[in-house]
Amino acid sequence: MGHNRCVSVGLVGLGRLGRQHADNLAFRIPNCRLAAVCSINPEEVEEAQAQLGVPYGYTDYEEMLRNKELDAIFIASPSSYHCDQIEKALAAGFHVFSEKPLGLYMEEALRVQEAVRRHPDQVFMLGFMRRYDRSYVYAKRKIEAGAIGEPVLIRCYGIDPAQAMPGFLQFAKSNYSGGLFLDMAIHDLDLARWYLGAEAERVWAIGGSHRYTELAQLQDAETGAALVQFAGNKMGMFVAGRNCAHGYHIETEIIGTLGTLRIGTVPEKNQVAIMDDRGVVRECANGFLERFEQAYLDEAIDFVRAILDGRQPEVKVEDGVLSTALGYACKESFETGQLVEVSTPAALCSPHKAR
Amino acid sequence: MGHNRCVSVGLVGLGRLGRQHADNLAFRIPNCRLAAVCSINPEEVEEAQAQLGVPYGYTDYEEMLRNKELDAIFIASPSSYHCDQIEKALAAGFHVFSEKPLGLYMEEALRVQEAVRRHPDQVFMLGFMRRYDRSYVYAKRKIEAGAIGEPVLIRCYGIDPAQAMPGFLQFAKSNYSGGLFLDMAIHDLDLARWYLGAEAERVWAIGGSHRYTELAQLQDAETGAALVQFAGNKMGMFVAGRNCAHGYHIETEIIGTLGTLRIGTVPEKNQVAIMDDRGVVRECANGFLERFEQAYLDEAIDFVRAILDGRQPEVKVEDGVLSTALGYACKESFETGQLVEVSTPAALCSPHKAR
Amino acid sequence: MGHNRCVSVGLVGLGRLGRQHADNLAFRIPNCRLAAVCSINPEEVEEAQAQLGVPYGYTDYEEMLRNKELDAIFIASPSSYHCDQIEKALAAGFHVFSEKPLGLYMEEALRVQEAVRRHPDQVFMLGFMRRYDRSYVYAKRKIEAGAIGEPVLIRCYGIDPAQAMPGFLQFAKSNYSGGLFLDMAIHDLDLARWYLGAEAERVWAIGGSHRYTELAQLQDAETGAALVQFAGNKMGMFVAGRNCAHGYHIETEIIGTLGTLRIGTVPEKNQVAIMDDRGVVRECANGFLERFEQAYLDEAIDFVRAILDGRQPEVKVEDGVLSTALGYACKESFETGQLVEVSTPAALCSPHKAR
Amino acid sequence: MGHNRCVSVGLVGLGRLGRQHADNLAFRIPNCRLAAVCSINPEEVEEAQAQLGVPYGYTDYEEMLRNKELDAIFIASPSSYHCDQIEKALAAGFHVFSEKPLGLYMEEALRVQEAVRRHPDQVFMLGFMRRYDRSYVYAKRKIEAGAIGEPVLIRCYGIDPAQAMPGFLQFAKSNYSGGLFLDMAIHDLDLARWYLGAEAERVWAIGGSHRYTELAQLQDAETGAALVQFAGNKMGMFVAGRNCAHGYHIETEIIGTLGTLRIGTVPEKNQVAIMDDRGVVRECANGFLERFEQAYLDEAIDFVRAILDGRQPEVKVEDGVLSTALGYACKESFETGQLVEVSTPAALCSPHKAR
Repeated sequence: MGHNRCVSVGLVGLGRLGRQHADNLAFRIPNCRLAAVCSINPEEVEEAQAQLGVPYGYTDYEEMLRNKELDAIFIASPSSYHCDQIEKALAAGFHVFSEKPLGLYMEEALRVQEAVRRHPDQVFMLGFMRRYDRSYVYAKRKIEAGAIGEPVLIRCYGIDPAQAMPGFLQFAKSNYSGGLFLDMAIHDLDLARWYLGAEAERVWAIGGSHRYTELAQLQDAETGAALVQFAGNKMGMFVAGRNCAHGYHIETEIIGTLGTLRIGTVPEKNQVAIMDDRGVVRECANGFLERFEQAYLDEAIDFVRAILDGRQPEVKVEDGVLSTALGYACKESFETGQLVEVSTPAALCSPHKAR
Repeated sequence: MGHNRCVSVGLVGLGRLGRQHADNLAFRIPNCRLAAVCSINPEEVEEAQAQLGVPYGYTDYEEMLRNKELDAIFIASPSSYHCDQIEKALAAGFHVFSEKPLGLYMEEALRVQEAVRRHPDQVFMLGFMRRYDRSYVYAKRKIEAGAIGEPVLIRCYGIDPAQAMPGFLQFAKSNYSGGLFLDMAIHDLDLARWYLGAEAERVWAIGGSHRYTELAQLQDAETGAALVQFAGNKMGMFVAGRNCAHGYHIETEIIGTLGTLRIGTVPEKNQVAIMDDRGVVRECANGFLERFEQAYLDEAIDFVRAILDGRQPEVKVEDGVLSTALGYACKESFETGQLVEVSTPAALCSPHKAR
Repeated sequence: MGHNRCVSVGLVGLGRLGRQHADNLAFRIPNCRLAAVCSINPEEVEEAQAQLGVPYGYTDYEEMLRNKELDAIFIASPSSYHCDQIEKALAAGFHVFSEKPLGLYMEEALRVQEAVRRHPDQVFMLGFMRRYDRSYVYAKRKIEAGAIGEPVLIRCYGIDPAQAMPGFLQFAKSNYSGGLFLDMAIHDLDLARWYLGAEAERVWAIGGSHRYTELAQLQDAETGAALVQFAGNKMGMFVAGRNCAHGYHIETEIIGTLGTLRIGTVPEKNQVAIMDDRGVVRECANGFLERFEQAYLDEAIDFVRAILDGRQPEVKVEDGVLSTALGYACKESFETGQLVEVSTPAALCSPHKAR
Repeated sequence: MGHNRCVSVGLVGLGRLGRQHADNLAFRIPNCRLAAVCSINPEEVEEAQAQLGVPYGYTDYEEMLRNKELDAIFIASPSSYHCDQIEKALAAGFHVFSEKPLGLYMEEALRVQEAVRRHPDQVFMLGFMRRYDRSYVYAKRKIEAGAIGEPVLIRCYGIDPAQAMPGFLQFAKSNYSGGLFLDMAIHDLDLARWYLGAEAERVWAIGGSHRYTELAQLQDAETGAALVQFAGNKMGMFVAGRNCAHGYHIETEIIGTLGTLRIGTVPEKNQVAIMDDRGVVRECANGFLERFEQAYLDEAIDFVRAILDGRQPEVKVEDGVLSTALGYACKESFETGQLVEVSTPAALCSPHKAR
């Protein structure tokens, strides 16, 4: 606030999450203007333009990049496009926000890192929105204030609602999702690094498919568990899954030497409790858009402010690279059954040193 | 513990609660022996004798009172017998425990008070078991330790499970229950006096029967609410009912000048939470025997200890009388629609002064 | 969304809540433009204009009303100005949103009602924001869907944080707040009418000042309790207060014939639980701006949409009048100690019939 | 109940837990008589005899075994004595209850198993009391009834209160505790097998000592985490520790294909919530005697009934052996840093086949 400048944003990707970003960018972000939308689906483009009053519409991403009115590109396209679109937008001189992941393969993540490092004056931000969720932010501040002493163990659950499984199975038959640990656990792996203040060293990951056994044929798991040893004998426990009966279960616990914090133990939908012949019932959030609505908004606000303030956001490309490296180690461990050392290639120096 | 003496108890009443008391007295009370059982139903007597190893069985209460081996009489018979049985047991020289209420009418409560006062060397205890429930005891100690400052408002819910309604309707057609406020709220009225440390002055009570409208014809209510002004501008809010969908809802809240205590907000059955397509579900206790199992046991332990220690228990007959007087004021207010002054006849001096 | 028109709003009042409204109107409301701000304090006006990019600034309300660019007036000034400012804005042809209350006296509420009725083509909306809170909206929908059968009893707590007491005492020495029931309970009285679908008939209200005894000298109470009989033997229990140790306690419970809903039992700040040597701790919201942030936003969104759609919002002026009438009845009962009939002057026909 | 016979029990070990068992056996177990107590500390023996009215007292265990009035021996002595005392009691013809563990070393556990198998007509029971806790029993029944489909992942927390740490450090300097996984996690390892209905195959365990670093010198950890792969791709996650700030944290979660059960998420002390300037606080249980009071009682009741009924209890010696084998695998993994196969020696056939 207090800025007179306005950031013009072009958004690519108008799926469910893309459309949510579009609504936010159009109406709810101070000093921001949604000036262009892009999708390979022309109907999505037209609808967004009409409903949100967006002047420019594209079905060709590179054409949008030639629009000189734009200041920043917001990438919410399918994961397989991220790496390429980030590189091109940076090369064209734009500030870039990209949804996670940096790419579907480790090499893509490293390519993005290189591109970002080549353009230090452009803002780059990765959509680890949980770091903007109020409860997660509050927990971080509490830890920094010493409320639980030194964090030594983190437990993260990230389980998608069972009702989304049929859609996922349909998608997974013809697309590469990255598998449970890369696709679902990546936010948790980032959170673990953030809260523990340490990098992963070794991991063992296991999993199974007991209800939807076709997942096993896709080399994937319905429910997986990983144990990670972090530097300094810190510990991480992760449950990732796609078969949560009660909704979208995102829960994080940080155990410290003097106390423990839990976020989202009951993944409640709202503040209503229903008491009826079943007992006392708390209904649950049914997906990421519902649970993280505020975080999706606040990350975009911070992206715009970072551009106006001429600073980089707190979530750095290295966070994406290191979380991806850990996700790949989980995936390898799950697939081989072995304990896996988390490789940190020379390129992956810590984000603190990186800048 | 540490006593060598053993208290021999004769129990009258072998209904559901009576039988629970019998099991406790037979097996779970140190220095106590269940020596006799009495019921107008000879089968109940035989069964209890056989299963619990009780030497004496009676179908005639006065005959039991002639058994010189007994030290104490435990009364768990229907409410309409309480007053008479208490008087006779005291006259025969026994220590007496009686389930609530002291009687169905105010005069009966006063008659019992007179009888108790005539036998100051015999232990008399009224079954306000909630005062022995660990959570209620803990709350009392916290308040005495200043945790919430001065208690100024109490809210009490006492709502029977809806599933018990058909049985109650059957009972109420041919019996006088005392009505919602005397039958259901009496424990709460006692708790209010206990926690606030003050006596009631005025009450307004209202109610309605929206699901089981036949209750209105019995001059009773399915759900009732009372607001009571206590001495010193303290306040009591009471909800009594018989139509709780989720189980047996006993909840108490004490608001003080520096904090608030709540007991039983979720009337949980146990520590299990079920997460399924309904959300996060806490199942609830389904009745007083389940909720107050520990309290029923501990009140009997205290009764036996009081006898062995030669002292009176903390719950005094005056507590029964004053709670009954308040219950009657609620009932009168509900029936007349008017604000009612809580009468405290001369006989009702405070329990503190009484002894 | 989908509208091309944009509503230009002029806001009067730039206190804490006014400033929150200003931020919302400036940045977060689709099809809305904050075109003017007004306050008797010129510094507040300048600051808001600078930070929010507002073209027009006024220290004179009537001057703002002469601005022909404006479509609507948003009133967030002190309560004593509401009635007059509403009348003038309506007379000048504007759509009007006003913070509660309609006025400090019953006659003011009725004057506003008359004014609104004289301008049926202008949108008028009263800031009963709780009706826009997601949890409250969800509860309403659940009830309409039959989740708890017929609502028969509502319990509402509205207790301000103790830490705000010193500021309130300062204010109350030289201002008329309306007293606990009108100032604090008015939202709850509206909610009771909304959820029960019935109007109040009789009330008894009591209260006391045990920590801040100076409140008694102001004819006010620190903590108050009211029992209200609604049509059809429905019941309402209200606790209003200004001395909540743990934060801002807004809790609502609706008991129906088949179930119960509770909103905000733990007035939690966020989804973080802290486990340390105190036990498991949930920190609480500390005021209305924190608890109802989303509701303040959504009510403004609905106001703007109602203007664009040419319809009246769901909260009608009659809701304000009837809630105020009930609040006055509570106040009278508290002051006289008597049971009070809730007067419904001829002017107060039901909102359903009103339009 | 209904038995006329009475089981005479001799108890060895009068430490904190031993004394709790003594109180239960003396007063709260139907058809049971505490006839003898034994401790190397003659004062403990005298005190227990006097307070509980126990006729026989011993400081020599073998002397107690020569008492022909006894039917059963209850072992609550230090862990290092268990194996030997069990063997001797079985050899002397007694029914035997032993606190966990079967022994401090795997060979001891196997020796006990052999001894038990040599005396199939004597009741042998191991004190896995959690299987008798009402919440755990309820969860088991729910699972058997299909409430969560097929159990696929279990998460168990077993963390001792930090306030017990100084005592433990004192003890551990001169005694072998077995280490975190054998000493603390053994109950959880048994529960995992019980709920999953599967045996462990592989484990990786890690841990650290961040507050009490002297634990590292004892080859032990303050907080440890283990991930276990069970047959059928089922998963177990375990946190064991001795540094819980908020009390005694025992929590168990079972994730199934159709739902999830959680037991003890908030390890609450009782049903009281305290609301004060800290927020809403639930105080926690501070140790095993408080948390599992009911379970300690009910396991003893079942032991006595099993003797009277001439049957073996549900918890079999093989459960102890298999849980111990898994505990040793955790310990080995923690000490070597490697993934460890859980050995199941030929002697360890499954309990289902064993009888």
